[in-house]
Amino acid sequence: MNRIRCAVILAAGIGSRLRSIHNDKPKGFLQIGDKPIIEESIARLIYNGIQSIIIVTGYKNHFYDDLKNKYPFIKTIKNDHFETTGSMFSLFTAKELVNDDFLLLESDLLYESNALQSLLHSSDKNVILLSGATGAGDEVYVGVEGKHIVNMSKKISDIKKLGGELVGISKISQELYEKMGSHIDSHQDKKTNYHYEDCLTDLAGDNEINFHLIEDLAWIEIDDEQHHKRAIEKIYPLICRRDSEIELQKRVERNILLNPGPATTTDTVKYSMVVEDICPREREFGELVEGIRKDLVRIVHGEDSHEAVLFASSGTGGVEACLTSVIPDDKAALIINNGAYGKRMVQICDGYGINYIKYDIPFGDPVELDKLEQFVNANKNILSHIAFVHHETTVGILNPVGSISEIAQKYNLEIIVDAMSSYAGIPIDVNKDKIHFLISSSNKCIQGMAGISFVICNRESLQKTSAYKRRNFYFNLFDNFTFFSKSRQMQFTPPVQIFYALRQAINEYFIETEEGRNKRYVEMYEVLKKGLLELGFKFLVDEKYHAKILTAVIEPEDKNYDFNRMHHYLYERGFTIYPGKGAKLNTFRIANMGQLYKEDIENFLLTLRDYLSSNRITLNS
Amino acid sequence: MNRIRCAVILAAGIGSRLRSIHNDKPKGFLQIGDKPIIEESIARLIYNGIQSIIIVTGYKNHFYDDLKNKYPFIKTIKNDHFETTGSMFSLFTAKELVNDDFLLLESDLLYESNALQSLLHSSDKNVILLSGATGAGDEVYVGVEGKHIVNMSKKISDIKKLGGELVGISKISQELYEKMGSHIDSHQDKKTNYHYEDCLTDLAGDNEINFHLIEDLAWIEIDDEQHHKRAIEKIYPLICRRDSEIELQKRVERNILLNPGPATTTDTVKYSMVVEDICPREREFGELVEGIRKDLVRIVHGEDSHEAVLFASSGTGGVEACLTSVIPDDKAALIINNGAYGKRMVQICDGYGINYIKYDIPFGDPVELDKLEQFVNANKNILSHIAFVHHETTVGILNPVGSISEIAQKYNLEIIVDAMSSYAGIPIDVNKDKIHFLISSSNKCIQGMAGISFVICNRESLQKTSAYKRRNFYFNLFDNFTFFSKSRQMQFTPPVQIFYALRQAINEYFIETEEGRNKRYVEMYEVLKKGLLELGFKFLVDEKYHAKILTAVIEPEDKNYDFNRMHHYLYERGFTIYPGKGAKLNTFRIANMGQLYKEDIENFLLTLRDYLSSNRITLNS
Repeated sequence: MNRIRCAVILAAGIGSRLRSIHNDKPKGFLQIGDKPIIEESIARLIYNGIQSIIIVTGYKNHFYDDLKNKYPFIKTIKNDHFETTGSMFSLFTAKELVNDDFLLLESDLLYESNALQSLLHSSDKNVILLSGATGAGDEVYVGVEGKHIVNMSKKISDIKKLGGELVGISKISQELYEKMGSHIDSHQDKKTNYHYEDCLTDLAGDNEINFHLIEDLAWIEIDDEQHHKRAIEKIYPLICRRDSEIELQKRVERNILLNPGPATTTDTVKYSMVVEDICPREREFGELVEGIRKDLVRIVHGEDSHEAVLFASSGTGGVEACLTSVIPDDKAALIINNGAYGKRMVQICDGYGINYIKYDIPFGDPVELDKLEQFVNANKNILSHIAFVHHETTVGILNPVGSISEIAQKYNLEIIVDAMSSYAGIPIDVNKDKIHFLISSSNKCIQGMAGISFVICNRESLQKTSAYKRRNFYFNLFDNFTFFSKSRQMQFTPPVQIFYALRQAINEYFIETEEGRNKRYVEMYEVLKKGLLELGFKFLVDEKYHAKILTAVIEPEDKNYDFNRMHHYLYERGFTIYPGKGAKLNTFRIANMGQLYKEDIENFLLTLRDYLSSNRITLNS
Repeated sequence: MNRIRCAVILAAGIGSRLRSIHNDKPKGFLQIGDKPIIEESIARLIYNGIQSIIIVTGYKNHFYDDLKNKYPFIKTIKNDHFETTGSMFSLFTAKELVNDDFLLLESDLLYESNALQSLLHSSDKNVILLSGATGAGDEVYVGVEGKHIVNMSKKISDIKKLGGELVGISKISQELYEKMGSHIDSHQDKKTNYHYEDCLTDLAGDNEINFHLIEDLAWIEIDDEQHHKRAIEKIYPLICRRDSEIELQKRVERNILLNPGPATTTDTVKYSMVVEDICPREREFGELVEGIRKDLVRIVHGEDSHEAVLFASSGTGGVEACLTSVIPDDKAALIINNGAYGKRMVQICDGYGINYIKYDIPFGDPVELDKLEQFVNANKNILSHIAFVHHETTVGILNPVGSISEIAQKYNLEIIVDAMSSYAGIPIDVNKDKIHFLISSSNKCIQGMAGISFVICNRESLQKTSAYKRRNFYFNLFDNFTFFSKSRQMQFTPPVQIFYALRQAINEYFIETEEGRNKRYVEMYEVLKKGLLELGFKFLVDEKYHAKILTAVIEPEDKNYDFNRMHHYLYERGFTIYPGKGAKLNTFRIANMGQLYKEDIENFLLTLRDYLSSNRITLNS
């Protein structure tokens, strides 16, 4: 079974019969659910493991081009002759971009996931998806013989043996695609008003083009107002129900992880690790890594200025790589130490004998900017960097990256931001905040699996380190960067499957969008905060400093309270909470990262309430 | 769906009707295929994701106890009263060991994998597996009502509505198991001649105990000579055919990786990564890591003397951890440099400023032991270690660990062995060869996924390093060891899913056995060697030094030959070969590690021959 990773969507057409509804937008921008049908289709493709989508545009192409800003896995190409040519011309407009087997879709389709899965799981190389009778009024009937298609026509009388109706979703092999290309090249008359269905029919005699029939497939092509009405009233609700059932079948038991990562992931991220074995020194894997590197930078809006350097390690490995690679021997970093991860920076510097100045703050208190500046000013001659943790999960505090960066700029220092538990959960802009080095990992708010850390480096700042004396080998930033740049290979063997999971997780991030993910996290936090306060809990950190991704809760003084027993009670019921870690008061911690929803937090609060009441634990009011 | 990871096999019985066939061995040691039926059952359980197996023994228990040496995931416990008690007493003998839901099996069963899968995938908590009519002569009939069982009897007349015949494989929840225990505790008369089937019947009224019927299940319980004959002639061949079909259904595309790791893995290892999300600071995950640590040491027979320290990194990370943690500041390592990985040791020492002496050998030539000893002798005052690569994949040479170790012992030095590509492929005994530190990774001959490196350390040698000045943070061996020992947690976030894959890969290693894996690898090598010689190729390294896991082949001089074109030709056909790397002559490399078979090598050779002839490449004879 060859895994299909690419889809081509034909979206050049005008859709004149629908003008009244979609106000002159292309047909794909009709909206039935909560987003345009083209974006529904895109999300469905991504959740079924497609990794790149080519859209052939024409009419009002800028609508589709705009999607590229939102979804970096999309490429568009325009058929300039869209008004006078058929879909086959459009399909061949994409030939520079197509270099593998692909799914071919029309842009105006609403369909259930099963449509994609049946083609993706088929062992046949070329498969045309058919459905039972739709009564749509403009059906394309497909004639078949055995497993193969014979012809297609809008006239049922042209069909000898009916296989079903054409849906407009097909699996096309690279080989067949090339033959389709040769076919139109050798028939000049077929360059213009000729459709891909016609071409498939023409080639069906000499090529194995199979069909797959799903008798009661939930789908509709929206060509006119009547279709539109039917889509809203009948088909869309049916698709939603069917898709939720499909997911149920292969669902992995879902644990609600309220620890600060590794976080709860989607099933699609989990299953994306099951791939054919590959040697990571192959070009194909290099392209995967290259795409991930670019997208990791794009998430923090540094595509023109920054580079991502990846390591097979935990997040701490990434921090160690950064600190040991960028602080020159004769300089020092000012480390803000207001949590266990600030302290870890200190430990790393101690391990290597790197110079640093510590700004110690009790764990739970915020950074005082005046004091920070005094520290900087007093040591300005030896400092090269300010290093700190963005979201310090020890206490759930958000350190003010913008204000700290301003101080750094004033004294011409670079900043190193450990954004382990904020990256992809809280919007970050490395250029707006002048962040030189930012570190995170694959298993926090980006919602992939643990095993990869990465440092997003300002290009010039990284280049400067090329001449620095090496302090280690595995973790040197510049050497890892150079190796990849030269060979498009990771310097050392990467955790292959974790890269596939990260690819899927990043795609799902873009589907949810920066704003959408942050909104979901903040909503969960608000529900959590309200619920905890209602139960009588108090927070370690003043609300105005809350990162809204983790909340440190002061432990009850009631003698019936015991963290381990509470943890066990909740764990047995599917909720994983986290103990405190060296804060100024005793706490436990509740994170709200990962693929969770506010309903999960509500269920958690109900379960916590049950624990408290069944153990007769009272909270000080 | 709660994932079942434990199985209990009832194996206390005498099996008196079978004495003539099995020579007084317990029934499980009957042999139908190429191993005793109990080992068939064990392998089938492991390949279906079971991770620990409890065998309740009685009659001739030492046969079962011996299995523990071969399979570390087995625990045995003896029912001392096996001659006078029923199976319920046996089942409860295991109560100290059972702490989760489990599969319950009888020891004398031959069955197809579908029997296990149907129970493992069922969403019901308690399920009794039933089959259609077998005509076996001593059937246990099961009466049912709706989804539930009602009663069981050998007399069909006792049954109101027949659900099917009892197979002897069931899924039992922890909760039901406890109720079964209470039931016999409160009925003293039921302590002795009482069977688990009776207990299930007694509890069926008040508990939801469901059945699952597979009408045409391929299975047999072997109680007498007639069963034995039927098993050999009919059932066993059917089981083999059915199991190969089941595997086909979920098979991932199989690439033949002939690069020196990451290697081709089984589908069961791939799917073992799809697990419910878990916080790796939970006790449950700590137990997983602890079990893996023990088994990694056991593979090189160091369970009484050595400890495994694990890192989230590539294999190089493990080498860096070892070199930077164990060589004291005032001492030096002698590094044998006869390949890229010996050279890498040098680069690591350079990165940190660790003292070393190099014994340089052209890549492709073997170690000369006299010369090595001269080097050692000349530097004996400053040396503390000899560091070298066991199987140097740059050239496919096997460096003689025994002889090198003897020299080290003579001069009272410790040895550091990079066994990246030999561990689990070539038998190693850390005590016989006095290896102090041995490094490998999860993705080579152990056949797991990339992302974990490990150092297997002699306990005393590791302890000695506790006081050494730290050279780094993430990779300090002793600190990582101490952290795990104290908390049973990895010091830094581990790649969770890669650990699950490694667990499965280790279990599959024990199923194949040390001898079996080495034999399979050597057979592949012999086929490869013969085939390459027949084609006219020559080897870089004299055959007597071949590691038999990778062969470096001298590149043809024919002008039509081009490595990249050859690679591409083979890659397109599913075979991944590997370029040369700095050897004294131009080579390409063919590894034979991973879940491959000699048939794969034969197919590779045929494809290589096609490449040569279709490109008219002639080889010098």
